[in-house]
Amino acid sequence: MDKAQSRFKMLKQHHNATFEKAKKDGKMDLEFISICDFIKELDDFFTSSCCAGRITLVGLDARESKKESAFHRKWHRKVTFAEVKEGIEKYNGEVLWFKQEPLIFHLVANNLANARRVLAASGRSGAKKSGINVAKEGKFLIEMLGAHNINLPVKENGKVMIDDEMLKYIVKKANQKFVKNQKALKKLGQELKKELKKKTKQTKKN
Amino acid sequence: MDKAQSRFKMLKQHHNATFEKAKKDGKMDLEFISICDFIKELDDFFTSSCCAGRITLVGLDARESKKESAFHRKWHRKVTFAEVKEGIEKYNGEVLWFKQEPLIFHLVANNLANARRVLAASGRSGAKKSGINVAKEGKFLIEMLGAHNINLPVKENGKVMIDDEMLKYIVKKANQKFVKNQKALKKLGQELKKELKKKTKQTKKN
Repeated sequence: MDKAQSRFKMLKQHHNATFEKAKKDGKMDLEFISICDFIKELDDFFTSSCCAGRITLVGLDARESKKESAFHRKWHRKVTFAEVKEGIEKYNGEVLWFKQEPLIFHLVANNLANARRVLAASGRSGAKKSGINVAKEGKFLIEMLGAHNINLPVKENGKVMIDDEMLKYIVKKANQKFVKNQKALKKLGQELKKELKKKTKQTKKN
Repeated sequence: MDKAQSRFKMLKQHHNATFEKAKKDGKMDLEFISICDFIKELDDFFTSSCCAGRITLVGLDARESKKESAFHRKWHRKVTFAEVKEGIEKYNGEVLWFKQEPLIFHLVANNLANARRVLAASGRSGAKKSGINVAKEGKFLIEMLGAHNINLPVKENGKVMIDDEMLKYIVKKANQKFVKNQKALKKLGQELKKELKKKTKQTKKN
């Protein structure tokens, strides 16, 4: 086994352990557990991170550079008007954004040919925003992104810019899109399983 | 020259012609003209499409599936409150979205090694959302996306959901982000030129 492939095996072991811990801690979406359990058994792939979609309030400084630490609220489920309103009122920073973010899934393949399979399956599932972000031998990282998102500023320098009627409407739309993401994720899981199972069998025959 | 590489040459000729026409018709952003003129002279790359960022009103049907034909208004510049308001009022469809979209740039490399150079330059410029979307021999398409966007529904079934004060605020933020995109594009252009010039010289030496 060459250096790149043995590094791939090491990385896979590390990420398998991270996945098992996240599963045990109840941090995984059910649909992703099913996909990741499947991928864990394949020699040529592993999953590095995933999120089935989320609704957040993100605080930014005046320059509006995103920092992970700036999450003011984060929900991996549908939300209510009351809890979003409460989050907006409690915010004391510079600019607060309401975000409904799509599913994101990072899968690593050991070579280009296998990365292509992932792109093909992802394309068939309708997740058009997919690409190979890292392309080293032994580490081809494919990012798959869902299509649905909402992104708007709602409060600046202490002033709430969005009125209650509009906020209720945005919350309703965000919840609808959250559900659409769950469906897109199911479809993505089906296509990945179909493609990667088939190809793995072919590899074994050869 | 093998089949994949001769197909690459053919595609490059086709896209060069499309670029020259767009330039002549005044459809190109100045910064992109500079990048695309540079890339046109390289043997191993061509540009297939680009947009320096835009502000749009997009009409969707009840299922909210995006169709290109559903652009209700499209501006490749900063906008005024009055023209956005007018656009919202004139809309008679089901759901209308206000969008400020980031720069998007599609560059094609003839092989994986060259695609990697593009990813590296793009990463250094700060355009983190970059990936290889198509990975065939003779056609490695890299999509580079800017970071700044705004995306929210503003009108549904004839009812304007956003009040004037909020709309003025959203327009102001969208214009700010439009300018940030222009700066990100300049940075991306500089990094691409630096990387691809250097590497092309090395290739010639070998």
